[in-house]
Amino acid sequence: MPIQVAVIGFGTVGTGVVRTLLEKRNWIRKWVGQPVNLKWVCDRDVPRPSGFKLPVGIATTDMAKVLNDPEVQIVVELIGGLEPAKSILLEAIRKKKHVVTANKALLAESGRQLFAAAAKADVDLSFEASVGGGIPIIKILREGLVVNEFDAILGIINGTSNYILTQMREKNLSFYEALSQAKRLGYAERNPALDINGNDAAHKLAILTLLGFNVFPRQSDIYVEGITRISQADIQYADELGYSIKPLAIAKETNHELEVRVHPALLAKSHPLANVNGVYNAVYVHGDLVGSQLYYGRGAGQNPTASAVVSDIVSVACDLAGVGGVPPIARALSKHQRVRFRRIGDIETRYYIRFTVKDQPGVLAKIASVLGRHHISIATVHQKERTGARAVHVVMMSHMAKESNLRNALRILDQADFTKQPTVAIRTEEPRQR
Amino acid sequence: MPIQVAVIGFGTVGTGVVRTLLEKRNWIRKWVGQPVNLKWVCDRDVPRPSGFKLPVGIATTDMAKVLNDPEVQIVVELIGGLEPAKSILLEAIRKKKHVVTANKALLAESGRQLFAAAAKADVDLSFEASVGGGIPIIKILREGLVVNEFDAILGIINGTSNYILTQMREKNLSFYEALSQAKRLGYAERNPALDINGNDAAHKLAILTLLGFNVFPRQSDIYVEGITRISQADIQYADELGYSIKPLAIAKETNHELEVRVHPALLAKSHPLANVNGVYNAVYVHGDLVGSQLYYGRGAGQNPTASAVVSDIVSVACDLAGVGGVPPIARALSKHQRVRFRRIGDIETRYYIRFTVKDQPGVLAKIASVLGRHHISIATVHQKERTGARAVHVVMMSHMAKESNLRNALRILDQADFTKQPTVAIRTEEPRQR
Repeated sequence: MPIQVAVIGFGTVGTGVVRTLLEKRNWIRKWVGQPVNLKWVCDRDVPRPSGFKLPVGIATTDMAKVLNDPEVQIVVELIGGLEPAKSILLEAIRKKKHVVTANKALLAESGRQLFAAAAKADVDLSFEASVGGGIPIIKILREGLVVNEFDAILGIINGTSNYILTQMREKNLSFYEALSQAKRLGYAERNPALDINGNDAAHKLAILTLLGFNVFPRQSDIYVEGITRISQADIQYADELGYSIKPLAIAKETNHELEVRVHPALLAKSHPLANVNGVYNAVYVHGDLVGSQLYYGRGAGQNPTASAVVSDIVSVACDLAGVGGVPPIARALSKHQRVRFRRIGDIETRYYIRFTVKDQPGVLAKIASVLGRHHISIATVHQKERTGARAVHVVMMSHMAKESNLRNALRILDQADFTKQPTVAIRTEEPRQR
Repeated sequence: MPIQVAVIGFGTVGTGVVRTLLEKRNWIRKWVGQPVNLKWVCDRDVPRPSGFKLPVGIATTDMAKVLNDPEVQIVVELIGGLEPAKSILLEAIRKKKHVVTANKALLAESGRQLFAAAAKADVDLSFEASVGGGIPIIKILREGLVVNEFDAILGIINGTSNYILTQMREKNLSFYEALSQAKRLGYAERNPALDINGNDAAHKLAILTLLGFNVFPRQSDIYVEGITRISQADIQYADELGYSIKPLAIAKETNHELEVRVHPALLAKSHPLANVNGVYNAVYVHGDLVGSQLYYGRGAGQNPTASAVVSDIVSVACDLAGVGGVPPIARALSKHQRVRFRRIGDIETRYYIRFTVKDQPGVLAKIASVLGRHHISIATVHQKERTGARAVHVVMMSHMAKESNLRNALRILDQADFTKQPTVAIRTEEPRQR
């Protein structure tokens, strides 16, 4: 029996969730063991996606029809804001539907009521996408680190603020220049107040505090200060002193009191959070068992948020399908799947190559000639003089090359009379561009 | 009804798991909704903990008694190695007990058989502690990122190797000096072969590949190269070229082939993994939805590993208690819990303080005097000359100070006739020492 899902709200996140549910339905079906079917996509205006097609008949503007549909088992609220989102969630819960939401403002405001209603109705209320975008920080804290007691949770959890401060530092922009750039690139909303005044981070901090400390602060318990006062001069002075200014959300226990605060802070450049730049988010935790940990990734955007929302849907679907926590690993392994593992000789990468050779004229030319014949092209060469006994180190960085070619070349070179020690070659890994 | 657990193997990890189950039993009981009771602790020698007491009658050397006990629902295998660990797990599974293991060598060798047996018997086989120590990377990949397709998973997943290469770079040690230091500090086993020759990382890489790519490579599919060839000279040359040498485990898809390999690699210093130092582990993933993410923490040690093993036990216990995926959030919130939130005026931290004042003699003395009267002690002072109109910036870093004191001082100073603009104060956050 398919598990029936309704998505309410077809903005940026709703569109990403719907597309992911449709595009990945085969994998989800295999993993859950039952089809997870998108029965309704509901919005005030008739949902009309661009770039993909909705199945016929699932787009609707009729909220009551969706909430009253007894087949719908999972309701995904992606409208945002307080109302009607809250009424929709409460109504769905009352009708014994499991609910998934990304709505941090609503959780911060009415979480206590919503969590109590879900517990009473014995349904799941899942909210992975409410903090940290694609980083599964809710699952990490609630399940992965379940037996840890924390003394500190620090987050860079507002990408807009982090982007602005990063641009101010890296590009010498003023606050307002960086803000307009963020708007131009879609990293800030047209009305960025919630982001730059710290309130969005405070919503998320309430949720992190709930998970880490088992208390749910009201927004009035949280001290909130935005990034608007930070000037270019402060960023430069901080830099000279060895610090970065970062938009932090902080929950920490000090003498049996809890500090919950959102404000820009100076971080020594050695702090794990100091190098979290641009629109990236990160959460740093310090637990009694695990010590220091850092979780880093994109904190917003259509796809990362869809990843989080759909993971919640899959998790609830696994429960409904009777798989308990997670499906057995054996299910993921396809028996008939043919995978080719690439042989090491076939990989291509850039190489660091160190030769230890006699210090005499013509050696470099001979090395270059053998490498060239094997299609190894050299990016840089440095001759070092660290070894004694008239031997020198010659260090090269290659361009992209095939490993088997390199090995063949080195086999020849290692037998040459000018080679004093076996050549050392080390592969490189390049950072990804996106 | 209590859920009955048996721990088999009372070495370093077993001791940590047993202590955690005992010390945190109240929280676990509250979260699961039922007591999770440690019924047996079994080892070849009678388990005798130091530093805490085992409940009377639970220590045993009689493996058969433990496996045949119909009350035991969860068997935790912490012996390590291939046999008798494998037979114990298979026997427990056959008896329809859920099993938890940290045994990466066994999973790499016989995972396919074990996973199939667990699926057939309809029991959970959990293995969070097998990779990444306290980082819940298994849960992250298997549940949090469940709908992502990955093109790359890169890990620094052997702390011993990472510690050795880090010490070689930071302290100019030779490989053997760094290795003996690692042994002295307990970061390397007496026989460190599995760590430094890359095989431990290859075991873990097989598991990461299973979770990220749904194929389970045999060890012979994985190209493995240890760190023993890396010399001090290579580390320095790499450093001069802008790279760090890191012990990597790599799974990535290239033209529909999978590359699975373990070897030291040059990472540009801007790579997210390049600054993962010492015994820390990290896993970098690149998924189609979430983009780049990094998960960072302690990859070994008694407590981080216990955190992972006990999270598996709690997860299975939640299933057995009928909570499905996870207990309702409302359960974690204590109704009668009194939490004091610290008021912002009561926090203590170091402050960056920027004054904008008239450029005239005596101003600094007046500022210092007001701060002193309010118990704000100054660590450094810098006078800057960036503003025009005869105003200067005076930048101070304070020692630890109470916020209310600072605010009172600044209220007075901001009214002084020499102050040209409101003073800017920014709090600092210090990196944790452990």
